[in-house]
Amino acid sequence: MAPLDRAGDADLTFLAAPRYAPLFLTTRAGAALVSPELADQPGQVRARIVVAKPHEAMLRVLPELYVAPTRVSGVHATAVIGRGTTVGRDVSLGAHVVIGRDVVLGDRVTLDAGTVVGDEVRIGDDSHLYANVSVYPRARIGRRVLVHAGARIGSDGFGYVFRDGAHQKIPHVGRCVISDDVEIGANTTIDRGSIDDTVIGPGTKIDNLVHIGHNVRIGALCLVMAQVGIAGSTHIEDGAILAGQVGLAGHLTVGKGARLGAQAGVFGDVPAGETWSGYPARPHKEALRAQAALFRLSGLMKTLERLIDREKR
Amino acid sequence: MAPLDRAGDADLTFLAAPRYAPLFLTTRAGAALVSPELADQPGQVRARIVVAKPHEAMLRVLPELYVAPTRVSGVHATAVIGRGTTVGRDVSLGAHVVIGRDVVLGDRVTLDAGTVVGDEVRIGDDSHLYANVSVYPRARIGRRVLVHAGARIGSDGFGYVFRDGAHQKIPHVGRCVISDDVEIGANTTIDRGSIDDTVIGPGTKIDNLVHIGHNVRIGALCLVMAQVGIAGSTHIEDGAILAGQVGLAGHLTVGKGARLGAQAGVFGDVPAGETWSGYPARPHKEALRAQAALFRLSGLMKTLERLIDREKR
Amino acid sequence: MAPLDRAGDADLTFLAAPRYAPLFLTTRAGAALVSPELADQPGQVRARIVVAKPHEAMLRVLPELYVAPTRVSGVHATAVIGRGTTVGRDVSLGAHVVIGRDVVLGDRVTLDAGTVVGDEVRIGDDSHLYANVSVYPRARIGRRVLVHAGARIGSDGFGYVFRDGAHQKIPHVGRCVISDDVEIGANTTIDRGSIDDTVIGPGTKIDNLVHIGHNVRIGALCLVMAQVGIAGSTHIEDGAILAGQVGLAGHLTVGKGARLGAQAGVFGDVPAGETWSGYPARPHKEALRAQAALFRLSGLMKTLERLIDREKR
Repeated sequence: MAPLDRAGDADLTFLAAPRYAPLFLTTRAGAALVSPELADQPGQVRARIVVAKPHEAMLRVLPELYVAPTRVSGVHATAVIGRGTTVGRDVSLGAHVVIGRDVVLGDRVTLDAGTVVGDEVRIGDDSHLYANVSVYPRARIGRRVLVHAGARIGSDGFGYVFRDGAHQKIPHVGRCVISDDVEIGANTTIDRGSIDDTVIGPGTKIDNLVHIGHNVRIGALCLVMAQVGIAGSTHIEDGAILAGQVGLAGHLTVGKGARLGAQAGVFGDVPAGETWSGYPARPHKEALRAQAALFRLSGLMKTLERLIDREKR
Repeated sequence: MAPLDRAGDADLTFLAAPRYAPLFLTTRAGAALVSPELADQPGQVRARIVVAKPHEAMLRVLPELYVAPTRVSGVHATAVIGRGTTVGRDVSLGAHVVIGRDVVLGDRVTLDAGTVVGDEVRIGDDSHLYANVSVYPRARIGRRVLVHAGARIGSDGFGYVFRDGAHQKIPHVGRCVISDDVEIGANTTIDRGSIDDTVIGPGTKIDNLVHIGHNVRIGALCLVMAQVGIAGSTHIEDGAILAGQVGLAGHLTVGKGARLGAQAGVFGDVPAGETWSGYPARPHKEALRAQAALFRLSGLMKTLERLIDREKR
Repeated sequence: MAPLDRAGDADLTFLAAPRYAPLFLTTRAGAALVSPELADQPGQVRARIVVAKPHEAMLRVLPELYVAPTRVSGVHATAVIGRGTTVGRDVSLGAHVVIGRDVVLGDRVTLDAGTVVGDEVRIGDDSHLYANVSVYPRARIGRRVLVHAGARIGSDGFGYVFRDGAHQKIPHVGRCVISDDVEIGANTTIDRGSIDDTVIGPGTKIDNLVHIGHNVRIGALCLVMAQVGIAGSTHIEDGAILAGQVGLAGHLTVGKGARLGAQAGVFGDVPAGETWSGYPARPHKEALRAQAALFRLSGLMKTLERLIDREKR
């Protein structure tokens, strides 16, 4: 499988959006998955396979074309496992993995090389933590969870009280709870709760370099894109989508199915189902209108200042 | 201890702000720390403990309720320690820790599993580096410093000179100096100095995923929140507070006690004691007024354009 | 070598910009590299060495003053190397390094402690991966590449198709290809391609905590500063410069030599050679003019609203 511009005659490619039609003209791919609307697009590809949704079709074809490497279970001789820890069937523990005391690992859990799991952590069946991940003590990780390299699960939150001339650390005794079917990107950090728990709901997907503060609750099936930052105690309800580099202040609620545009700076609650963007974030249409107004006014400043001057006089 | 909405009758909870009064009505907590202003708030909690500052009270109660796990000193059999390194009393070195040559570790230093410390580093008494931290050669870390999982201390700064058709790397020979009582969040990166040192002042607290460039100097008792980025040679004076995702250009000065609002983009010096926000950052009140003006104008564009059209004619 | 304000009489310093002239007045440095324009700047430094470009001169002097530690080759006893892996001459593999199967390492490759390299990866001659780096299977890393601590190379991209009530993961079968002479900052993440490859061009330098999504292509000799985020399938052409915290949406093209100002939010193509900034990003002059207009208008709102009120009546 290869993209339009790189496919050769032994490759399968796909065309799912009109913007790529020019590349379809010249592709040398042997075959292409094409959506019905684009089925007659000019191009010399030898075989067109017309499918309702090329991306979904690709999802089915890929595992056939690229057979995943067979998972090898076993515990590497250099893995270190603490007292009281119990390990399910067919786990795969890589080189230099370190597991603390009283940990419970489910069946078929995979921990790649260099991953460190703290005391009293639980990890459910079929979860996979990639290389160099750290899990702080007492975190809970569900089933079929993927945690990419370098992610930090359950670190202390950023909480201090200023007293006697210093920032005194608030002890963090809450947990970090990751539900089933969550995926967490590389080098993402999710803090544990201070007193309450930090909770990521089932089926939610989190990209790379995201920061999630203490006591945050994210519902089910959300998408949180790269470099988003969520301050403490903010709640994100089911199905919300946060685009890249969005920042949210603490103690807010983002309603069910709401969407936040890239780089939005959110300082208030966002109602369910709405799309907000900009800084400070507002309903997307208002934000766009304000931006457009600004650029129009900026081009008319001379006339505008003349008007204002006369009014002032 | 548990938050209002999750506490049961065996739990202690707290009420510190009026916005949580509705939860107080229905909490099933056995007891609550309550501030004097909220002492008479309706609710059926069995015992109210009225305290001037519930958050501070919590700080004192928490260590009694949650006894910290006893620190076990010792050097794990898999730890690797370089020649010429000296180690204080009662250190705790976890599994697969790697320490370079000529390192000096103070008393009661804790290095968690997978942490790597470069040659000639010094780490003071009672400091704790969590799992998978990297410290580059020659860094200095003070006493009672906490460094969370995956933080990188003393990496090369981003400095090049374009010559002979390539970006030639400027060697980084300065140090990264972390003073006493600093806390550094998970996956934060602090570059070493190019010629000068990078310095973090005593008692300053830094959150997760923060980037601090070469030659930056941060004073005492600052708070630097998640995902802040500070470009090279910028100085932050004592007691400044930088909210999440703030970005600062290089070679600036942020004065004593200044505050920067979340996501501010700072391209000039910020005077001591002032609060700035927005992009480009301005005094907070000006920034707010400009935002308000923009949204008001955006709603009045039709009338405004009519006025301008007539003036033009 | 030391900066103006810290140099003593045994130190060499430099003066390259007029803004540092006040420090030159009082510096106690023994000698200074000075640009011709600043050669007569008042100050009591004992020896002035006038050079066309002090920064370039520094680049030549530094390696003489600070002799780099001799590189010691060898494979640490605790390194784990998979079957079928071949290793070049004079490699240096640190403690607890883990290398998968069928990897090819060139001559003089250095892998610092705790670094994990997946199956079928290739790393070219003279490349250096610092501590705790992870490289996912099948990535290609060229010659003379520097990868700083905690960087993640080749992690899965963020791609899902919503089907049957869940976000189904799109398998990532493309590679992550890092060309010769690239430098990658600490804790930066670069995803592998979904079907196509993610490619970083020769001589490009990437700072800390940068996110580069799947299928992104970056050309030669670009500079990508700290905390930049580049969404999937965006192309950055040769010589482009992306300042700190810039965010780019997916499927865009940033032309040859274009520059993006710090924190820019880019939602459309950027033409070659242009400088854009702001949110949403526009040509830098337009963005500046709009900002200036906004602050002028914000100060004139009273008069403006009077005008508008009268017009409405």
